[in-house]
Amino acid sequence: MADYKVDLQDMNFLLDDVFAVAKDWETMPKLSEVVDADTAKAILDEAAKLTENLIAPNLRAADEEGIHFSDGEVTTPKGYKEQFAELAAGGWVGVTASEEFGGMGLPKVLSAQYEEMMCAADVAFSLYSGLTAGAIIALDSHASPELKERYLPNMVAGKWTGSMCLTEPHAGTDLGIIRTKAEPEQDGSYQLTGTKIFITGGEHDLTENIVHLVLAKLPDAPAGTRGISLFVVPKFLVNEDGSLGERNAVVAGSVEHKMGIHGSATCVMNFDGAKGWLVGEPNRGLAAMFTMMNYERLGVGIQGLGAAARSYCTALDYALERRQGRGAKATRDTAAEADPLLVHGDIRRMLLTMKSFIEGGRAFSTFVGKQLDRSKYAASEEGRTKAQALVDLLTPVAKAFLTDTGFEATVLGQQVLGGHGYVREWGQEQLVRDCRIAQIYEGTNGIQALDLLGRKVAGSKGELLKPLLTEISTFLAGDAGEWSNEYGELAILVQEVERITGEVLTQVMQGDENIINSVAVEYLHLIGYVTYGWLWLKMARAAESSDYAESFVQAKQKTAKFYFARILPRVYGLMPSIEAGAKELFAFEQDEF
Amino acid sequence: MADYKVDLQDMNFLLDDVFAVAKDWETMPKLSEVVDADTAKAILDEAAKLTENLIAPNLRAADEEGIHFSDGEVTTPKGYKEQFAELAAGGWVGVTASEEFGGMGLPKVLSAQYEEMMCAADVAFSLYSGLTAGAIIALDSHASPELKERYLPNMVAGKWTGSMCLTEPHAGTDLGIIRTKAEPEQDGSYQLTGTKIFITGGEHDLTENIVHLVLAKLPDAPAGTRGISLFVVPKFLVNEDGSLGERNAVVAGSVEHKMGIHGSATCVMNFDGAKGWLVGEPNRGLAAMFTMMNYERLGVGIQGLGAAARSYCTALDYALERRQGRGAKATRDTAAEADPLLVHGDIRRMLLTMKSFIEGGRAFSTFVGKQLDRSKYAASEEGRTKAQALVDLLTPVAKAFLTDTGFEATVLGQQVLGGHGYVREWGQEQLVRDCRIAQIYEGTNGIQALDLLGRKVAGSKGELLKPLLTEISTFLAGDAGEWSNEYGELAILVQEVERITGEVLTQVMQGDENIINSVAVEYLHLIGYVTYGWLWLKMARAAESSDYAESFVQAKQKTAKFYFARILPRVYGLMPSIEAGAKELFAFEQDEF
Repeated sequence: MADYKVDLQDMNFLLDDVFAVAKDWETMPKLSEVVDADTAKAILDEAAKLTENLIAPNLRAADEEGIHFSDGEVTTPKGYKEQFAELAAGGWVGVTASEEFGGMGLPKVLSAQYEEMMCAADVAFSLYSGLTAGAIIALDSHASPELKERYLPNMVAGKWTGSMCLTEPHAGTDLGIIRTKAEPEQDGSYQLTGTKIFITGGEHDLTENIVHLVLAKLPDAPAGTRGISLFVVPKFLVNEDGSLGERNAVVAGSVEHKMGIHGSATCVMNFDGAKGWLVGEPNRGLAAMFTMMNYERLGVGIQGLGAAARSYCTALDYALERRQGRGAKATRDTAAEADPLLVHGDIRRMLLTMKSFIEGGRAFSTFVGKQLDRSKYAASEEGRTKAQALVDLLTPVAKAFLTDTGFEATVLGQQVLGGHGYVREWGQEQLVRDCRIAQIYEGTNGIQALDLLGRKVAGSKGELLKPLLTEISTFLAGDAGEWSNEYGELAILVQEVERITGEVLTQVMQGDENIINSVAVEYLHLIGYVTYGWLWLKMARAAESSDYAESFVQAKQKTAKFYFARILPRVYGLMPSIEAGAKELFAFEQDEF
Repeated sequence: MADYKVDLQDMNFLLDDVFAVAKDWETMPKLSEVVDADTAKAILDEAAKLTENLIAPNLRAADEEGIHFSDGEVTTPKGYKEQFAELAAGGWVGVTASEEFGGMGLPKVLSAQYEEMMCAADVAFSLYSGLTAGAIIALDSHASPELKERYLPNMVAGKWTGSMCLTEPHAGTDLGIIRTKAEPEQDGSYQLTGTKIFITGGEHDLTENIVHLVLAKLPDAPAGTRGISLFVVPKFLVNEDGSLGERNAVVAGSVEHKMGIHGSATCVMNFDGAKGWLVGEPNRGLAAMFTMMNYERLGVGIQGLGAAARSYCTALDYALERRQGRGAKATRDTAAEADPLLVHGDIRRMLLTMKSFIEGGRAFSTFVGKQLDRSKYAASEEGRTKAQALVDLLTPVAKAFLTDTGFEATVLGQQVLGGHGYVREWGQEQLVRDCRIAQIYEGTNGIQALDLLGRKVAGSKGELLKPLLTEISTFLAGDAGEWSNEYGELAILVQEVERITGEVLTQVMQGDENIINSVAVEYLHLIGYVTYGWLWLKMARAAESSDYAESFVQAKQKTAKFYFARILPRVYGLMPSIEAGAKELFAFEQDEF
């Protein structure tokens, strides 16, 4: 496996030259207090050191060892405890948490870069702190002051971690039918009883306590998703003075044996009259949990990006070192018995596909991160609302498209190595296995697509799509320089997106109940490819007027050209498939499958 | 994991109604002696019982246990020995081998069905007999009568297995630079010295002997691929009387730890002056090995098909059993708290994509199998030549397209199960891991594409493409019935393939040395999708006039419609990418990656 090298130059280019985030921060009081361009750079440098030197080298050993489970106790792989302690000591667990509870209060646009590094270094390990960060947000947004005071400081400090208990054996996507019960007690607490599965970090040995956020139903709760409440259920009860009290009745019953992320403990959690406290309003738990989910979803998207970035390091290294076959006559290294793989067109196609997904994806996650910051911190309500609309639209796209392209990229990164990509030694196969889960959990990518086309686009009668298309069209209305072909093609594609969206909305209005879920995945990909097209042009133009080294500027422009020539055409396959609608899928009787 | 059920009905439909192979056999003396429609059916029934009941149930346990390696010895997973013994006893190892050496001498079009079953049941296990079958063919075609007499009967009987020793640490795709040496001895044998890696079944405990086919260089061999010879090197030397003699100097030095196919021993083989015998002419070893490779390549393609077929069994089962969410109002099962997954459009999209790849792929492998039989057994030389041309063209397509679509299908089959697809229990993740290697070994799919567009299409100045396109066009010139839209679209696509092929050939003639390898993978996919389009129409029309149950006929027609509406449009994304050519890929300097 090649050493993991963070692409700091590209991250700084995005923050400074493409999205000018420091200027943005100046307009947002809460952020201008804690961060400016210089501190941002220093933080990224530190994060790169931490992930490259401390975490990344343990990736394969941790996968080989995996977690150990015995009698309800989880032992994490060698090195994880020390890694987590260092993470906590550096304040990295609370990187986006409010300063009130000891957090750094950094903008998401910055933590998105740090998250990419963590996911590239070891995504299984990153989940312990990543879910904690999500739980912190959910508590900070919805819990009572007393609960916040009791839990947040230790979570932010990385002394305790958080977990997210949603799924039950019979209820994954469909949370409306969960059965875990919460019975009110005299003292204002609740007794929780039920079984939760697929609980990441539900049990482990990294910290002295684990704070579970649990969805459950009150005795009088209405059926469906409007009858779900959110509870905080600590592994150890917390005394008035903040010290740890007795063990709560929540125990890991078993752990899953998975395709990948072997260092992450995925637990069955049994709640057997466990003591918990209500977070937020009764029966409003799903909304509260979605605060956390929405934060996590960009983070899960970034898992795809991180895996791809790591895979690229090894694939490029291998393509430069490994010699097989011969390139074009003029370029042959006749002193050697063969040329480096990089001379071959198909190797270049694979590497550049990866590169266009990685850098396009990094630009995308940075853009969405910037909107998340604006939605929270922008000075004007109008600014916050506008950004929130983009966040609402793009969160499912970020989760699904970053992981779908991330998975494709890691598979290509494995393919570049041939047989060496299939053996564990080189690490490429692990990235494929680790990356695969990101297309599944936190709402499968099919569910993300349904969220995008159903709840967001159709739910707003197309209104929510407009801010994105306006952003792209406004850019395209500017001077095209030497990019008039690409500007022209993308402008037509924006119109095509509008046209196809209109067609789908018409079918919805005509009562086709199946149309949305029948074309949603292709639709999400269409939006993804068009958005990356815009971002690649944005990057190419920003590079033109930057003072980066010529090779960096050239690489950006050439990759943009590559993206338009070789990747973007995929939309011409997607569009007819969307236009075909639901008909062919629902022509089938059950016994015809 | 759902039970594996062989789709015998579809196999019989292809053999009888779509390709009428029994009629074909009647015209081929060698085949008409051994097989007719009734024996073929009986053989498929037996094969289905064997694979469903004996082999398929051990799939996951064998993966979990994997092989054991110690001191040069490999122990295979529990059950493999008994399975292999039963396979050998039933004559299944020599299913296509000549009767002269005890084989069944069955046509490939039939063994292709059996191979699909084996690959679906346990591809790792299937490799031990699959490589033996390939080695049998290579020996039968190229070895001296004495060598054949010495090795073939025991190999055909499954008493000994075969291996294929090509790759070396520095030489995988590029076999021209191998270093293993063969020094001639006084007695006409050779001493082989060198290291081979990635040797499937290089060592194991299933049989008393292993017959290695080894590529090596004679002392005076010219450089490159024209200086490679083929040798047979047994693990135990074979005495004149056929009994086993002393241990040969070939030892497994280690085994690989891989992403999947854990039941298959992938060995580093050290030849330390091992005794071997030349197979065929000196320096013509690569051609001889390609006899085996070409046989294997369809077999490796079928690995993708088998994995997909197995994955579909579980995915469909799960989609029928698992209840989450609600379908369209009229179809809701209001007595239950949720509807089966099958009501959801995106679940249908995933299942039907799988189905269209599996049945389309089965038709494709059957078609290629039929041509392999004709190329060998057709009564007239013209018939053999015509079939051979199709085999030459379609072998790389079969290997790469069946495994690329097979991998996509297994990934979808995993996605249908959500989180349950990621845990080992359900078996879907294993199929993804096991299937992945088929895109890599026996020539990566990139190399297959290069073979198709470079050696076959460009190498024949486009001539070799004609028999396929003629076959399709002739079909399309027939009565379209109610399929005139599909016939019309496909006819235009055939013209597009011709046009794009012409463009590529022009660039080759103009001296672009990089064009072939820059667009070959997309080109192979284009050929694959168009060919599947033709096969789907062929199946739909054959079903129309068959007397199968209405649900079978309907399913074939509806899947054909689905394929044209939702899958075939992918060609509209591929074509512009091919037309973009090599330019964007070769604009990059090394430091711009």
